[in-house]
Order: sequence, then structure tokens, then C-alpha cells
Amino acid sequence: MTGQPTQGSTGHPVAAAVSKERLGGILAKLSTYGALPGGGLDRQALTAEDLAGRRFLVDFARSLGALPLRDAAGNFFFRWAGLTDAPPVVTGSHADSQPSGGNLDGAYGVCAAVEVLAALAETGYHARRPIEAAIWTNEEGSRFTPGTMGSAAFVRAHLLDEFVTTTDVVGVSVGEALDTLSSAFPDVELRDLGVPFDCFVEAHIEQGPILEARVIPIGIVRGIHGCRWFEFRIKGRSGHAGSTPLSHKRDALMAAVEVASSVYGALREGDEELRVTIGRLHVFPDSVNVIPSAVFFTVDLRHPENDVLDAVEDRLRELARPTAGCEAEIARTMVMPPTRFEPLVVEAARRAAERWSVRHTEIDSGPFHDALRLNEHCPTGMIFVPSIGGISHAPDERTELADLTVGARLLAEAVVELADR
Amino acid sequence: MTGQPTQGSTGHPVAAAVSKERLGGILAKLSTYGALPGGGLDRQALTAEDLAGRRFLVDFARSLGALPLRDAAGNFFFRWAGLTDAPPVVTGSHADSQPSGGNLDGAYGVCAAVEVLAALAETGYHARRPIEAAIWTNEEGSRFTPGTMGSAAFVRAHLLDEFVTTTDVVGVSVGEALDTLSSAFPDVELRDLGVPFDCFVEAHIEQGPILEARVIPIGIVRGIHGCRWFEFRIKGRSGHAGSTPLSHKRDALMAAVEVASSVYGALREGDEELRVTIGRLHVFPDSVNVIPSAVFFTVDLRHPENDVLDAVEDRLRELARPTAGCEAEIARTMVMPPTRFEPLVVEAARRAAERWSVRHTEIDSGPFHDALRLNEHCPTGMIFVPSIGGISHAPDERTELADLTVGARLLAEAVVELADR
Repeated sequence: MTGQPTQGSTGHPVAAAVSKERLGGILAKLSTYGALPGGGLDRQALTAEDLAGRRFLVDFARSLGALPLRDAAGNFFFRWAGLTDAPPVVTGSHADSQPSGGNLDGAYGVCAAVEVLAALAETGYHARRPIEAAIWTNEEGSRFTPGTMGSAAFVRAHLLDEFVTTTDVVGVSVGEALDTLSSAFPDVELRDLGVPFDCFVEAHIEQGPILEARVIPIGIVRGIHGCRWFEFRIKGRSGHAGSTPLSHKRDALMAAVEVASSVYGALREGDEELRVTIGRLHVFPDSVNVIPSAVFFTVDLRHPENDVLDAVEDRLRELARPTAGCEAEIARTMVMPPTRFEPLVVEAARRAAERWSVRHTEIDSGPFHDALRLNEHCPTGMIFVPSIGGISHAPDERTELADLTVGARLLAEAVVELADR
Repeated sequence: MTGQPTQGSTGHPVAAAVSKERLGGILAKLSTYGALPGGGLDRQALTAEDLAGRRFLVDFARSLGALPLRDAAGNFFFRWAGLTDAPPVVTGSHADSQPSGGNLDGAYGVCAAVEVLAALAETGYHARRPIEAAIWTNEEGSRFTPGTMGSAAFVRAHLLDEFVTTTDVVGVSVGEALDTLSSAFPDVELRDLGVPFDCFVEAHIEQGPILEARVIPIGIVRGIHGCRWFEFRIKGRSGHAGSTPLSHKRDALMAAVEVASSVYGALREGDEELRVTIGRLHVFPDSVNVIPSAVFFTVDLRHPENDVLDAVEDRLRELARPTAGCEAEIARTMVMPPTRFEPLVVEAARRAAERWSVRHTEIDSGPFHDALRLNEHCPTGMIFVPSIGGISHAPDERTELADLTVGARLLAEAVVELADR
């Protein structure tokens, strides 16, 4: 449980060299770029703050002896040489944040990867394969849509042609923002998109409450939930709130509450892995003394198994029937199939936890991550550390430094084992 | 049922002189001021369209031999002389509309009152008391808040001091708009606010579905429902839609749907007179993949009896308790006690229907009307005609001309009986 090498521990010296103080220092320094006055970060993708944070990381990685590289999507890689030029074992995450985000979502995985480089440098260790620390561009998707943009373009280079024309709210395009990045990093060599990787491991905060609630410091991530988005539209008839008795009402909100109640019913009857969220709901005309004529709401549905997603979707579709005198329609607006990570990486992470006698559990990720994209490119896996209160995408996103350090140590252990294959 | 004088009918000759063609003509002409291209009206209070419509009515009333008068709140009165100068019997309504309103809400009561003057002129009849047709300013409250402004200021003159400083969305004040009205009607004599009335009778469309559903052409209005407004605020905890299992959710919308369901439950268990409407509902932060942290919704509650309103309010307050891991608060934002109209006017309306053998029923008004204000000033009552489909505050607000005519005939019958007291 301590993550310290114990008598009889079989942990690797590189993992033993992972330092709580150094990791804490890297995280603290990176957190200054885009820091909000009251805590937390606004470091959206390819902003001046994002580039300044990357400059710190590039210079630090170079000082360790790693070679900084970048690609056309603005993804950065800090390459620690291997004994061979075989495809590298890559670890990392994203450095961009939500507009009012925390210091750890993404940034932790980047700093843990850089800490692995620092431990390699401290021990002077070179594995059979190169080891690279990666920074993926625009995972959040808050400045430029869609999210996981850099990792998606890395895996499917043709996507970049679409992405570059996307603009932010003030009209700056991804293409222009990437040109600015190029100009800021003339010292970082350009490399092709989609170069072969041996495998990819991403450390990340859980962004949920499960590990904390179970007092388990490490989650070995089996995969990422499948996700489907739906829009319900309920149509009734407006009327004066004072003049229409119940028997004549065709109140769209009254019907929507009944439908939403059944949506939540499907959640209550599902297993613990099922996620059903109604995140948006709009009422028309939205006037205190007018009976609503229409209601719109969204459903975000997630589960690790497609069969379960199919069954819940069938149930949602059944709910799109006339209710309380109103018409109801459902439309599916997004489908993301479940991701299962490769045993190669999942088992390496599990062995790392066992070698360091760290309590761990299998877990699935509800949120998307860059690992979702990389899993199409090479064997991929993730390691989760607890989120205090399950809070994420908010300034009070926190994890104990001890837990962050254990995560980085196991990441080093797994990466070195994989690189020595 | 026909509203035509029948053999043995005891209807008054003035009521017999009410003309379907003339009433239809007055309504059609008034409907041209502020007419919307696709039907319906935008004739908000004290706009150029409202003043143009009033000019038509002033000139028409004067041509009949009535004396146009106005007061400091922009209310107009067309006075038909009595045999004495006793306080007048007054009938009328408002001529302003919602921004996307119909041709009848308010305008019908004004045109029916003017048609009574036309029937008085045609028959040359003068009752003991003067009879006045009134136009009340800004009943709708859509351009200037609050509604029933003119009738409220007539009854409580000190309110005008507050009202004149109120501005519309482009910054024009009620005071400025009333100055414009004064300049446009130098030919109409100014009279004090709050002059004594013998009684007030308002004809109006029902704005609800009851009369049409029961195939009854006339509603004798007993009173206006009491009304109370509430705001519910539900506070939960935000979180990522993908990472938070049901057992850890504090989803404010999930809680709000449960509370709203119970609010509707109170409606379902209430009597047919009870009205409960959730007209506004907002979700925060309103993002498809974020668990709602807060929900706000309003409740509009109406019933003719204070005891019932008290009991339902108690029930709503009980619902403001912790639900599904969320906090709930309730605040009452408006109270309007039930209005009971005076037997003097209600019985006169009933006798009018009986004399003309018109099928009628007692009914309560859910919406507010100028009659609500006038009831503080003098004995007051209302006569309703059916609304097709119960539709109001919309361009497709309609009533058969035959029903509008019956309403105007009974209005004339009741007004003349009251004026001859």
C-alpha cells in the first residue's frame, strides 16, 4: 500500500527512483500556467498558457536528456533512447484544461510521464525500446470541437484536414493556432503523424468517486464505457395556466417529467456500471403562467457492454410514445462503442501493482480519454488514481500527492517492463 | 339558445338592437390596428398601433353620441348620458394585446361595450344612470410591467406614481408613453382617476376550454381564482456523466423530476377547479455530459378557495425537503387572493341569460382581468363567451361570431337593467 520498495520487493530501480517531491514540483510548476485566481486552471488547447506550459515541459525534458519531438497536430513527444530503435513504449496524456478546470485532469498523466523520464535519467537506465512521454493536443474539446483531437489526428491523419478549419468562438482556427505553436517551438523537431508505437499507457485521475469510496489507491482500467447520446422532444399544447383544467391539459413538461421519471427508472434497475444522465432540459415558452408547449432534453447513456446499451436504448425508444396527451420523439445523436484495453498493457499494470504490493482494483472509465484513440493504433491501457469527492472539471479537483506518486511509480514499473520486452 | 328575441321573450329592446353585423364590423376594424401578417395582433399598450385603434373607437363612439373621456392612466370612457347624473354603470375591457396575441382577448370586451352604445343610440334609449364603455390601459403587462396597470391606477391612484417610471425594453417610460397619448387626444376631456362607479361588467373570452367542451355559449363568472407563485431551487452536486455511479449521484435534475412528479400528484388529486402549472424549469450547468448541480422551477397555483390554496401550499412546502441526496428550497413570490364578484352584477347577468333563454353556466376565471381591480372599487362581474380549443394569447384565438353576439346582447341586457335601478 505504501508504494515504497519493501524488503523482498521485486520493484524495478527506475520505479523506486520516482520521487514524490520532484513529481509534486513538476505538477506545481505546470499548474502556474493558466492558474485561476481562486484556484484551478484555464489552460485551453493551444492558448498562450498552453504553449507556455509546454515550453516548461520541453525544456525540463531536454534537461533530463530526452529528445523533444512534435507532429503536425501539435502533439509533443519526449523520447528517451532505448538500446534499440524498435517502436517506443509511450506514456502521457493531455496538458489542456476545461475553461474552469482543475490541475490534474490530463496534466497528471503528462507530469507522471515526465517523472518517469526523470527517474530514468536519475538511474541512467535505458530499456530495450525507447520510452516516450507524450502530450496530446486538445483532449478537452472546450476551445475547439471535438475533443481528443490530437490523439485522433495522430491515429487517423486524414482527420487533421477537417480539424484545421475548426474555429474557436473568436474565429481563430485550429490551423492558425497550430502555426503559432510551430513558430513558438522551432527547436522541436517535426515527426510524422501515426508513427508506430509498441504500446501506450496513460495515467489519469479517476474523475469519479469509486476508488476513494473503496479506499483503493490504484485502478487498473479494463476499458472505456460505450456511450450513446439521445435527444427527446415532447410536444404538447400551450395554454393559460389559469384557464386550463387538468382534463384539458396537454402540458409538455408534465409529460416530460413522466418520461424522465421512466428514464431514471431504467437507471435504477440497471447494474452499478450503468450511467444515465439527463444533462440538458429546456422548456418552451418558459413563462411562469403559460402551460409548456414543448420540452427538449438529452440523455447520456454509458455502459461497458454493447448488449446492455442496446437493451437500455430499446427501453428509451419505447418511452418515445404519446404520454399525457403529448407527442414524444427520440433521436440518437452520438454513438461511441465500448473500448476494451489490451491484456498486454492491462496485465503489465497489474503486475506493477503486485510487485509494489499496492492495493488495486479493476475499473472501467466512464469518461473518454486519449487512450480511447490510441487503442486503435497500438495495445493500450490506463492507470487511475483516486479523485477526492469524485470531483473533476472544476477548480477543486484534487488527489493526495501520495496517491499521485504511487500512480507514477506503477506507471514507471509497467513502462520499463513493457520497454524491456 | 339563439339569443334572438323570441315570442314571449322579456328581453329589453336595447339588447334586441345588438347587431351581429355591426359588432363583427367593429371587431374586424379594430383588428386591423397592429395586425400581424399571418393573423393575430401585436398591439401592445400605448404603442402607435394601440393609439390608432383608440382613435377609431373614440371617433366611432362620438359619432354615436357618446362623450369620450380619459384619465391620467390613459384609460378611456365613452359616456352615454343617463336620465340622472348618478354614478354610471360601466362596461369594457382592454384594447392592448400580447406581442403575438389574438383579436379577442380584451378587444372583444371593448367592442361589445361599444356595440351596447350603438344599440342605445339605435334605440335612442337613456336609462336612469349614465352608461360608459371603458378601455383600460395595459392589461397584458407585456410591454410595461405589471399588467392591469390602468385599472389598478384607476382604483388606487397613488400607484400611478410608481407606474410612470417603469420602462419598456427600449427605455421608453410609461410616463412618456402617456404624454404621447395625451398629445394624440387633445379632443378627449381629462377626468379624475377613481371617480365613483355604480358597478362594472366586463365581457371577455373564456381563454379556456370549458364552455366549448360543454357546448354552453355563456359563462356567468362567479369570481377569479386566487393565485400563488412559487420558486423551487434544488441543489445537488455536479459530476462527470461517465464517472459517477447511481449510488454516488447527487443529481439535481433527478431530484427535481421526483419533486415535480409530486407537484403534479397534488394536481391529480385536487378538484377540477385546481390549476397547477410548472411553467419554467432551468438546469445548471445544462451540458449533455455533466450531472446537473442545480435546478430552478416555478409553480403557478390557482383555485377559487383560499382554504384549498393553503392546503396545496402546505403540500408544496413539504416537498421542499432533502430528496435523492439533494437540498430543496421553496419560496413564495406572489399571492393574489380569490375574488368573489358581487351578487348585484352576477345576478343581473344571470337574469339577462334567462330573459333571452340562453344556456349558461356558472364559471370561475383562472386568468386575471381588469375586473379583478374594479371589484375593489364597485360591485363587479363578468360574462364569458367560449374560446375555440381554449386557445388564447396566440394568433389562432377564435370565437364564433354568433357566440360573440349573444355575449354582447346579454351584456346590453344586464347593463340596461343595472342602469335603470
